[in-house]
Amino acid sequence: MNKTLIIVLTLVLIISCGREKQNHSNFDSSKMMIRLSEIEIEPEYLEEYLSVLKEESKASVELESGVISIYPMYQKENSNQIRILEIYADIKAYLAHLETPHFKHYKTTTLKMVKSLKLIDMSAIDEETMPLIFKKI
Amino acid sequence: MNKTLIIVLTLVLIISCGREKQNHSNFDSSKMMIRLSEIEIEPEYLEEYLSVLKEESKASVELESGVISIYPMYQKENSNQIRILEIYADIKAYLAHLETPHFKHYKTTTLKMVKSLKLIDMSAIDEETMPLIFKKI
Repeated sequence: MNKTLIIVLTLVLIISCGREKQNHSNFDSSKMMIRLSEIEIEPEYLEEYLSVLKEESKASVELESGVISIYPMYQKENSNQIRILEIYADIKAYLAHLETPHFKHYKTTTLKMVKSLKLIDMSAIDEETMPLIFKKI
Repeated sequence: MNKTLIIVLTLVLIISCGREKQNHSNFDSSKMMIRLSEIEIEPEYLEEYLSVLKEESKASVELESGVISIYPMYQKENSNQIRILEIYADIKAYLAHLETPHFKHYKTTTLKMVKSLKLIDMSAIDEETMPLIFKKI
């Protein structure tokens, strides 16, 4: 095995490992936008709604670096009650999210399915521990 | 620089980088316990409550491998309204959490501060995307 190749390989690994750890400091936690969305769905549309929401939240987390979390859940005892934990790196990331094709598709498709919608702005109680919970921080 | 040393260093880096990525498959998502706790605090105890909760949630995430998320927030427009996103690897991790000194301290200390408490069991809508959001999955 060539010695130069080994040195190059070592350097590449050091740099790539380092990058993974650097992610921690990518965000300024004081600028984050945190929201708990409370959504009630018309029962006849539930299955269709869940499928559209799943597609939209997956695309947002996969494609948008500023979307730290769009994590959708439903209540076990009342599956029409949806809750979404949304965390954006900052207001810019949130506004960019509203302009994406996947969000626009979700919004127009699900308009008739939503019975009620509350967007509740939240504050983190412990911003320092968030990097231990969320991957992109 | 010694060639053997370079080879050893390369192997150590490959193994340590690989380990970081293996974390993804540590949990069986079908066994996860997901909960949104809705807690209202007596206003006169709010500051004290936040301090105890912060300490408890930080210790849980730092010390318990089965605690994927204990993420506490308060409503911006009504700071007495606390919400906590709790995700445990499985029921065993949850039961172990209840026995930790930090949880027991939280529970006994905050009993008089809590005006109301609702523990709402949730289901994830997209388990497959959770590893992109949560660090320990």
